[in-house]
Amino acid sequence: MGGLGIEDEAFIRGKVPMTKQEIRVLTLVKARISPTDTVWDVGAGTGSMSVEAARLAPQGHVYAVERNTEGVSLIARNREKFGVSNLTVVEGEAPEALKDLPDCDVAIVGGSGSHLPKILDEISARLKPGGHVVMNCITVQTLAAALEYLRAHETEFSYEAIQVQINRLQAVGAYDMAKAINPIYIVTGEKK
Amino acid sequence: MGGLGIEDEAFIRGKVPMTKQEIRVLTLVKARISPTDTVWDVGAGTGSMSVEAARLAPQGHVYAVERNTEGVSLIARNREKFGVSNLTVVEGEAPEALKDLPDCDVAIVGGSGSHLPKILDEISARLKPGGHVVMNCITVQTLAAALEYLRAHETEFSYEAIQVQINRLQAVGAYDMAKAINPIYIVTGEKK
Amino acid sequence: MGGLGIEDEAFIRGKVPMTKQEIRVLTLVKARISPTDTVWDVGAGTGSMSVEAARLAPQGHVYAVERNTEGVSLIARNREKFGVSNLTVVEGEAPEALKDLPDCDVAIVGGSGSHLPKILDEISARLKPGGHVVMNCITVQTLAAALEYLRAHETEFSYEAIQVQINRLQAVGAYDMAKAINPIYIVTGEKK
Amino acid sequence: MGGLGIEDEAFIRGKVPMTKQEIRVLTLVKARISPTDTVWDVGAGTGSMSVEAARLAPQGHVYAVERNTEGVSLIARNREKFGVSNLTVVEGEAPEALKDLPDCDVAIVGGSGSHLPKILDEISARLKPGGHVVMNCITVQTLAAALEYLRAHETEFSYEAIQVQINRLQAVGAYDMAKAINPIYIVTGEKK
Repeated sequence: MGGLGIEDEAFIRGKVPMTKQEIRVLTLVKARISPTDTVWDVGAGTGSMSVEAARLAPQGHVYAVERNTEGVSLIARNREKFGVSNLTVVEGEAPEALKDLPDCDVAIVGGSGSHLPKILDEISARLKPGGHVVMNCITVQTLAAALEYLRAHETEFSYEAIQVQINRLQAVGAYDMAKAINPIYIVTGEKK
Repeated sequence: MGGLGIEDEAFIRGKVPMTKQEIRVLTLVKARISPTDTVWDVGAGTGSMSVEAARLAPQGHVYAVERNTEGVSLIARNREKFGVSNLTVVEGEAPEALKDLPDCDVAIVGGSGSHLPKILDEISARLKPGGHVVMNCITVQTLAAALEYLRAHETEFSYEAIQVQINRLQAVGAYDMAKAINPIYIVTGEKK
Repeated sequence: MGGLGIEDEAFIRGKVPMTKQEIRVLTLVKARISPTDTVWDVGAGTGSMSVEAARLAPQGHVYAVERNTEGVSLIARNREKFGVSNLTVVEGEAPEALKDLPDCDVAIVGGSGSHLPKILDEISARLKPGGHVVMNCITVQTLAAALEYLRAHETEFSYEAIQVQINRLQAVGAYDMAKAINPIYIVTGEKK
Repeated sequence: MGGLGIEDEAFIRGKVPMTKQEIRVLTLVKARISPTDTVWDVGAGTGSMSVEAARLAPQGHVYAVERNTEGVSLIARNREKFGVSNLTVVEGEAPEALKDLPDCDVAIVGGSGSHLPKILDEISARLKPGGHVVMNCITVQTLAAALEYLRAHETEFSYEAIQVQINRLQAVGAYDMAKAINPIYIVTGEKK
């Protein structure tokens, strides 16, 4: 069956950027997915996060929302490769593409374009109490917008945030040399 | 049942230092524990890693080796708190304390004192092919010793290593301020 | 004597938080202070940055603006301790306290309270072409505000920004263990 | 004249890897160069560190030791470009190439191949009391060797070490995105 932490190389990815394993795992841990959860994965990219979420929710369902055509195709192929049947690909742009989905227990926001506040409005309205929204923020502006939203809605959400920086050691002859991976912020809101 | 990623606050810890949630999760991911695995947790501390490992191996068994008396007691209490029955506490010092354990599929080395090479000799002899040894290294010397061992035994092990640095954002009035957590290296050897 | 990089311990500091040596040095490098420059140090704290700036501008002058009474006293004492005569302490709050100062070649903003945009308006109006404003940002909100300002005034400023994270190795018996220092962003605007 | 912190782009560099400005500056600060100092720059690469050291020691002299022919040529060209006359290029390999140099007040070790202990023996014998040796370590093995040497010679040296990680923000449209630079350790020994 598996457990968390599929290797990056195992996913079909094309040229779509993919969240690294370590970040994917920490994001999923913050998401606190239960076996029967309904999960939205907004800006699903290659579907690597969606596939792992689907395995964490075997009696639940994951909706992978992606506007990019190549991404939509990659998600479908990764769903097939990993044999997860509880994963639906939704081609379209958030927040519009979220309207017809069932309410969720967990929302993961990987990519938001410039629509983050509107996406969070929709998530806020549709996330069940006790559920989590987890955002991966690679830009200062997205991080600031995520925090601003959660602070402005403090009656609905509590939040925590971490920055994660990973250096991978590379063997070069007799030496191990650190190769830096770009850092990322993981912002988690818990619906009250 | 649960899944990975119990909150730090959920564990009983006393004054024994405890691996932070994010590091615990990444260590467990690198360990690639299967449901039926036998796991050694060497230098188990509070047992936080052992408890999570036991939940990842519900049909397997975890042996938590710890020389410190307070640690041994904390592991027992956390085992009880989280209701994991497949976890045995072994009071004693590695590598001696490892001799009577059944062979393992996974070995996690959290604390090694100065005995790392001898502990790795024992693990190397008793780890099943395809199994993983994962070391958390918080000192330069332990990191260097771990890499030196794995390089010297390259016919038996392939390896990878990452440094993880987490900054936690703390809300202070209208601001979110980064508070750094000490970085750690996670070194993983895969038995050939 | 001289040169950049006075040790932290050399400064008189009381309970006022002080920028660490490594950050102080990198900030001063980004400031590109010339020997005859007029420098504003806004939110000067203990005056550690002001003292070093004054030594980099022996034929220039540094104005250390600080609203906190304890800070004002510490700056005066550090000025005396390091024997820098080209440093004036200005008690008051920016931007008001900046009005009566001579125009500047360099502005360093260590602390801004919530007045950053207004402080930057004043700096923008009074900084000479080719001069630099350097901000130390320890919160996400200050960083975002600094970048937003510089982006909104792109006809006046070009900018660069770095995040700096330092881990200090501490000897503990036979081991060297990393102790993390909280990270900081250094944002630099160059007046066109 | 200048002061610390020449921009990376200002140096002629070819394909020789060059220490980044921020690391160069922090290394020079740890070196505590005085105006009349004799400085050895071992493994000088492009000479960027040597040029800055030469400017910090206008009445002293810098010896840039480099075994790579392209490097030797680059150092000579950068010496000319920045008009520093107190800088001598020494083609050869340390420690042999150090034998004929005058004793030093400061030694900077950027590249050491696998000869670090022998190079440190020579530096230890020839560094004046109160002088500093500063090493840039990009591999775990070099870091461990540097610390091991300084610990084994604790009657001769006190030491400190930091790890520096810089993320550079890159503007991408309306966003600023962190781009990680590989981390480095700076190890400093002070001769007793």
